[in-house]
Amino acid sequence: MTDTTSPVAPAAPPLTRAELVRSLAAGERRFHELPKDLSPEEAAAIRRQALEQMTRTPLKNIAHHSLDVHRASKRNCENFIGVAQIPMGIAGPLRVRGKHLDGEVYVPLATTEAALVASTNRGCSAIRAAGGAVVRAEDVGMTRAPVFRTSGIVQTQAFLQWIKDNEDEIRAITEGTSNHLHLLEVRPYAFGSTVFLRFRFDSGDAMGMNMVTIACDRAVNELIEPATGVACVGLSGNYCVDKKPAAINFQEGRGKRIYAEVILDAGTLHHNLKTNARDLVEVQYRKNLLGSIAAGSLGFNAHYANVLAALFIATGQDPAHVVEGSMGVTCIEARGPDSVFASVFMPDVPLGAIGGGTALDTQREALALLGVAPDPERPGDAALRLAEIAGAIVLASELSLMAAFTSQDLARAHEKLGRQSLTLPT
Amino acid sequence: MTDTTSPVAPAAPPLTRAELVRSLAAGERRFHELPKDLSPEEAAAIRRQALEQMTRTPLKNIAHHSLDVHRASKRNCENFIGVAQIPMGIAGPLRVRGKHLDGEVYVPLATTEAALVASTNRGCSAIRAAGGAVVRAEDVGMTRAPVFRTSGIVQTQAFLQWIKDNEDEIRAITEGTSNHLHLLEVRPYAFGSTVFLRFRFDSGDAMGMNMVTIACDRAVNELIEPATGVACVGLSGNYCVDKKPAAINFQEGRGKRIYAEVILDAGTLHHNLKTNARDLVEVQYRKNLLGSIAAGSLGFNAHYANVLAALFIATGQDPAHVVEGSMGVTCIEARGPDSVFASVFMPDVPLGAIGGGTALDTQREALALLGVAPDPERPGDAALRLAEIAGAIVLASELSLMAAFTSQDLARAHEKLGRQSLTLPT
Amino acid sequence: MTDTTSPVAPAAPPLTRAELVRSLAAGERRFHELPKDLSPEEAAAIRRQALEQMTRTPLKNIAHHSLDVHRASKRNCENFIGVAQIPMGIAGPLRVRGKHLDGEVYVPLATTEAALVASTNRGCSAIRAAGGAVVRAEDVGMTRAPVFRTSGIVQTQAFLQWIKDNEDEIRAITEGTSNHLHLLEVRPYAFGSTVFLRFRFDSGDAMGMNMVTIACDRAVNELIEPATGVACVGLSGNYCVDKKPAAINFQEGRGKRIYAEVILDAGTLHHNLKTNARDLVEVQYRKNLLGSIAAGSLGFNAHYANVLAALFIATGQDPAHVVEGSMGVTCIEARGPDSVFASVFMPDVPLGAIGGGTALDTQREALALLGVAPDPERPGDAALRLAEIAGAIVLASELSLMAAFTSQDLARAHEKLGRQSLTLPT
Amino acid sequence: MTDTTSPVAPAAPPLTRAELVRSLAAGERRFHELPKDLSPEEAAAIRRQALEQMTRTPLKNIAHHSLDVHRASKRNCENFIGVAQIPMGIAGPLRVRGKHLDGEVYVPLATTEAALVASTNRGCSAIRAAGGAVVRAEDVGMTRAPVFRTSGIVQTQAFLQWIKDNEDEIRAITEGTSNHLHLLEVRPYAFGSTVFLRFRFDSGDAMGMNMVTIACDRAVNELIEPATGVACVGLSGNYCVDKKPAAINFQEGRGKRIYAEVILDAGTLHHNLKTNARDLVEVQYRKNLLGSIAAGSLGFNAHYANVLAALFIATGQDPAHVVEGSMGVTCIEARGPDSVFASVFMPDVPLGAIGGGTALDTQREALALLGVAPDPERPGDAALRLAEIAGAIVLASELSLMAAFTSQDLARAHEKLGRQSLTLPT
Repeated sequence: MTDTTSPVAPAAPPLTRAELVRSLAAGERRFHELPKDLSPEEAAAIRRQALEQMTRTPLKNIAHHSLDVHRASKRNCENFIGVAQIPMGIAGPLRVRGKHLDGEVYVPLATTEAALVASTNRGCSAIRAAGGAVVRAEDVGMTRAPVFRTSGIVQTQAFLQWIKDNEDEIRAITEGTSNHLHLLEVRPYAFGSTVFLRFRFDSGDAMGMNMVTIACDRAVNELIEPATGVACVGLSGNYCVDKKPAAINFQEGRGKRIYAEVILDAGTLHHNLKTNARDLVEVQYRKNLLGSIAAGSLGFNAHYANVLAALFIATGQDPAHVVEGSMGVTCIEARGPDSVFASVFMPDVPLGAIGGGTALDTQREALALLGVAPDPERPGDAALRLAEIAGAIVLASELSLMAAFTSQDLARAHEKLGRQSLTLPT
Repeated sequence: MTDTTSPVAPAAPPLTRAELVRSLAAGERRFHELPKDLSPEEAAAIRRQALEQMTRTPLKNIAHHSLDVHRASKRNCENFIGVAQIPMGIAGPLRVRGKHLDGEVYVPLATTEAALVASTNRGCSAIRAAGGAVVRAEDVGMTRAPVFRTSGIVQTQAFLQWIKDNEDEIRAITEGTSNHLHLLEVRPYAFGSTVFLRFRFDSGDAMGMNMVTIACDRAVNELIEPATGVACVGLSGNYCVDKKPAAINFQEGRGKRIYAEVILDAGTLHHNLKTNARDLVEVQYRKNLLGSIAAGSLGFNAHYANVLAALFIATGQDPAHVVEGSMGVTCIEARGPDSVFASVFMPDVPLGAIGGGTALDTQREALALLGVAPDPERPGDAALRLAEIAGAIVLASELSLMAAFTSQDLARAHEKLGRQSLTLPT
Repeated sequence: MTDTTSPVAPAAPPLTRAELVRSLAAGERRFHELPKDLSPEEAAAIRRQALEQMTRTPLKNIAHHSLDVHRASKRNCENFIGVAQIPMGIAGPLRVRGKHLDGEVYVPLATTEAALVASTNRGCSAIRAAGGAVVRAEDVGMTRAPVFRTSGIVQTQAFLQWIKDNEDEIRAITEGTSNHLHLLEVRPYAFGSTVFLRFRFDSGDAMGMNMVTIACDRAVNELIEPATGVACVGLSGNYCVDKKPAAINFQEGRGKRIYAEVILDAGTLHHNLKTNARDLVEVQYRKNLLGSIAAGSLGFNAHYANVLAALFIATGQDPAHVVEGSMGVTCIEARGPDSVFASVFMPDVPLGAIGGGTALDTQREALALLGVAPDPERPGDAALRLAEIAGAIVLASELSLMAAFTSQDLARAHEKLGRQSLTLPT
Repeated sequence: MTDTTSPVAPAAPPLTRAELVRSLAAGERRFHELPKDLSPEEAAAIRRQALEQMTRTPLKNIAHHSLDVHRASKRNCENFIGVAQIPMGIAGPLRVRGKHLDGEVYVPLATTEAALVASTNRGCSAIRAAGGAVVRAEDVGMTRAPVFRTSGIVQTQAFLQWIKDNEDEIRAITEGTSNHLHLLEVRPYAFGSTVFLRFRFDSGDAMGMNMVTIACDRAVNELIEPATGVACVGLSGNYCVDKKPAAINFQEGRGKRIYAEVILDAGTLHHNLKTNARDLVEVQYRKNLLGSIAAGSLGFNAHYANVLAALFIATGQDPAHVVEGSMGVTCIEARGPDSVFASVFMPDVPLGAIGGGTALDTQREALALLGVAPDPERPGDAALRLAEIAGAIVLASELSLMAAFTSQDLARAHEKLGRQSLTLPT
């Protein structure tokens, strides 16, 4: 998908660095049109120098990094000029009681939002006091839904019947593109002259979007179109659906589906979260349930997106996937007079332990901190460990913020409530 | 919101660095419980060392950075241990024809997703060939919606009448908390015994979430609750709604509401995007419209979230706000036989030119690259310049990906379409 | 909009009834092509006879009615052949404590669903025992949203500015089409090359859809298009939005916005509804809140649609408007240990006391039963009285069904719960 | 669910009719408290007389009907007082090309909305001219989703495993409640301490809601609860979801999923619908697609609800089910330069050929007109015939209204477009 419309300048006598900088700054040459024999570090330096000239902005901090530029500029980011440095803090220990992690971890969070790490940390202490968060993560699988054009319902039904009848061949061709893919389902949706086929794959420890796209491409181009004569209009027909909030993912899940929960007694509520069961249950009711209903929201929670974004950036996940991860439902229910049951539910969290940004240098260190290390013998387990951590840290962060509403705001409010009241007899 | 439940250990004889590391690693001391007189750099080093001991993970890349640790650890990230380095590439020049920017800029994008910068760059070239993207950004304002409990409809109506009658006082008290806030609206929503008041403020060049929360807190605690006797249950009642996809923000907007558009003729479509009007219009129809409808999505676009996340991370915005920014509608319409009108619409893009992560060192450089520089004489203009850039770069990225579906996939598909067909007479 | 494509047969010698029947039955003549000088009763009889011949189905019950055929066939139903007889039952007395009705009414419900009237009746008895339902109805107004095509954002902004600048003229021309219309708002929504203008009118005692459409048509054709040169693509652009579930109506309301509530003590819960506060609150939580969230529903209630449909059919409302009326939120909250506060909220209930089916003979009687009688001196009051009744009867029906879940199902369940349990230690 | 809280008065000496009327009118006796030995006709007359006295409203039209009162008052409507007479018109012939009907039918529509029958009739003529509507209806099945309370994720997973392991027993017990039920699926959805089990059944020619509820009740009370110890909180947990607009039904379907389509050439568009391909495609685009997107609607169509309500009332379906039927997507696409492909898609249309209101006298006649006659040898076929008719008549009605927007409004608009224009150079 690189822009090759403007041909690279003929290479006769090699240009000096200064000449390259000048030609970039003058707009005679595009930033991706540097000579191929430049090292990626040199190319980055030349681009920075040109930008500095053009904008009179020193870029010394962007230049300051320790990434393997060769890898980053090939696999992660074209027209590489350096890095954004995102502050990383540590929360924990977080006590996780899952299937893939039963123990404590310290969680690296990359964020620029004041109080997020401190608040999440407070949630971790509450969870610790309660003996840990019970977490389960299901591997729903990664999806991609090509869209096809038919002549109408009759051809659509014949097409869908063909898909059903040829499931084995479709499995063979898609799984043939990678050792790490297993086809789980092809879910159709159709109306008018349009058909979507939502392919869902187990992709092991990888988040899998790219592998799955390649697999679908192969199946569509080499099998489905030739055999059926039905044209594919686009490899992604938005019934996947990637990086957009959507009912289909809320219903069917995508990536990992994560559950985390804890029971907090009166003492923990009071000492660790400066709140109590009654107030917490009321904020939950009026904010996470009624407020989200009033807003027409798909997120029935306080702020899954915040801590998920921080974890995703720290560990090399795709931050745009936070869009999907923000969907979900928090529950806080009274248990007996003074305790609460609190849970988070995230039906759609795409993440991986390999691929994407996970191999970058700081991200690799963050994953190592969490003990997330793919084991070829147990594909998928490392990603599920990360998913369990994600569930528990979101629960921690959610609890702390919800408690903050009650302790700061409600308490203060209650003190100051005057005598006068609008309450009228009804 | 910091965790103060575990008291800091008495400071009698100052502990050595090694002792501090040991006590952290042994779990005797929490990561936020380091002596206050340590410099933030030392504290970070001690935390890293403890983590390295506990997890046997060297953290030398996370340690490698050029941030002003004092500022970052105070204002952005507690329990600071270093940074995540996110690769930054450059796209452009991007030709923007807006009200706050009429010219070309190079756009820094921090991403780990291969092909994103290259593809966006290709979109920039198409927009340049077309003379630029026409962009408009409206300052909808930042919102916060406290939630109140009443005794029912009768008290609710009296309460809302009071709010209406006392708008001037509410304006005075909220605007009194900051020189940069102007109250634009208080939108109520109520049912049962619950009332939401969605405050909407112009917050100048700041994204504004914190300022607005403080203003609401003041109004609620010092004016509304004392005067009405109606209790506020939570300062944020999710009718705001922050970092969650939601109908209210799609309808009413939040942050900036951004429009960007361009007309591409046959030559540009062919040379810059390797596509044509007919195929592009068809992918738009079946993917962005029908596919999103089928998915029950709030995002009628291909991938706003991707480039928005990259721009947000590069420029110090809150990446969790990408959740809201992913909502919106792309249009691609035939204009004459061979051209297309293409537009993006983003009703809900919270962003700022000051505050949050914008003062961090690499982020400041990225904003400077874009010429985003707040001018006290013209508050809000810098943020609107950034919003216009956001609109144009999203358009560029959207065009390139949409074209990729047609050129790569459709073309290949068309070639390979066999003779056999499922088309039946209807 | 009648089908005039097939010309009426030349009238030379008037055909006999038998000849007309024969020609209809033979398909030589369409059902709307009967001679104009036939009385509507004769025309209906001829149509029935033809249908009876063609389908060998006697239509004697459809023929059996007491409607004023002249009126019904002109104003309500073309190609009239008779009536559907819908059983009508009576519920009540219903004790309403509203602004437009403070007293008891008996409510006619036309339904074919067994148990609906009985169950609603039970809810009425509970409400009576509690002293009545407090109800408020707001006249949001009827809406219609023409859709326009512009050349893009620049023209869109100019167009919207023109609309704003010419609000007085728009008011004058729209209100000039009827003595009963008052323009309340023109709400724009725009993206790409498309602009919606959502006109909202107070339409007095009429539901108002037709009046409002005519007013918009006039404004568009005689003022807006000629003055701006911007083309209207359709008088209804679905941003109205009529008879479809939608966020815009949930947010902004449409027709009447209705609130009804009651507090039920332990005795009433036990004697009238065979339930108790705890069970009722739990069903509410798991069904109306969590279940609707899980389903991605816009209706956070048990069955508003049922009793609303029955009331609408009985009183001559448009039954397709039940689609909108099914949106809304039921709340049931503990009040003290043993009582509950129960409320219904319906943001979007289009209804009227005149026009549409309200003048039909049985429907007129049903409205008279309810004391719904438009008074020219107090336009709108009769419709609001009906809205208050709608709110209270929906509350009655909702309470009874919710209680049924607890008393029938939960009670039975509790008895039968065995010793064995899947509860595992967590 | 009848109200038995007030005991029937002791029957010592039988009261006269006048005495009964008096005691009802005086409020001493409720309307359901009439002596059991009264014939239902007498009881209805006594109720009417009491209402007439109380409200001074003659109810002679409500009294005028030909229903079998015994049946109607037992099976359809308690506290029976008479009927609502809904005007019935006839549209057609409608040419249907389905699997269960290949031929023409005349369609009875019960409506009070002027122009609906005439307009639908016009659509029928266009479909006839095009050779008929191709229709397919799938029997998705009727659903009911009880909601359960668990102790959290661990018990939830054990519970769901139990459900999976005991599918055969669940099938046996549910199918044992009726000869007409076949269990198709049990779809779980769970979070926090809540589990929904969405049972889906083939219910033959019946709409099936009641049968399915009884089957679920049996399975829950006699098998699932006793065996698992997990409590059912409500037999309907709104994940069903009945009579509410919802994503789950849009995704998974409910009742019948119906597709209907037709290709209209330039001549038919012009002669039968007074429109042309270009205008029709544009209204479709801006109204049904963009307008519904702007509105946040689940109905991407013009007015499915209107004609569906009219057909449902005429044929004894549950009119509250129109809420679900209003969801769906209309497509109108250019085919060649002058023709269009037009389709409707309704994923969620509950209907039946037996049960509910279908046995009522006028409704039975209406079904007979349509040739809808259950055949025990081919269970389900009659309901599918009705579903095919529903699809085709909705298509007819949709086409006619969409055409009306173009011919009336656009044409008029185009004529009147003045010289002046807001179009600015962009």
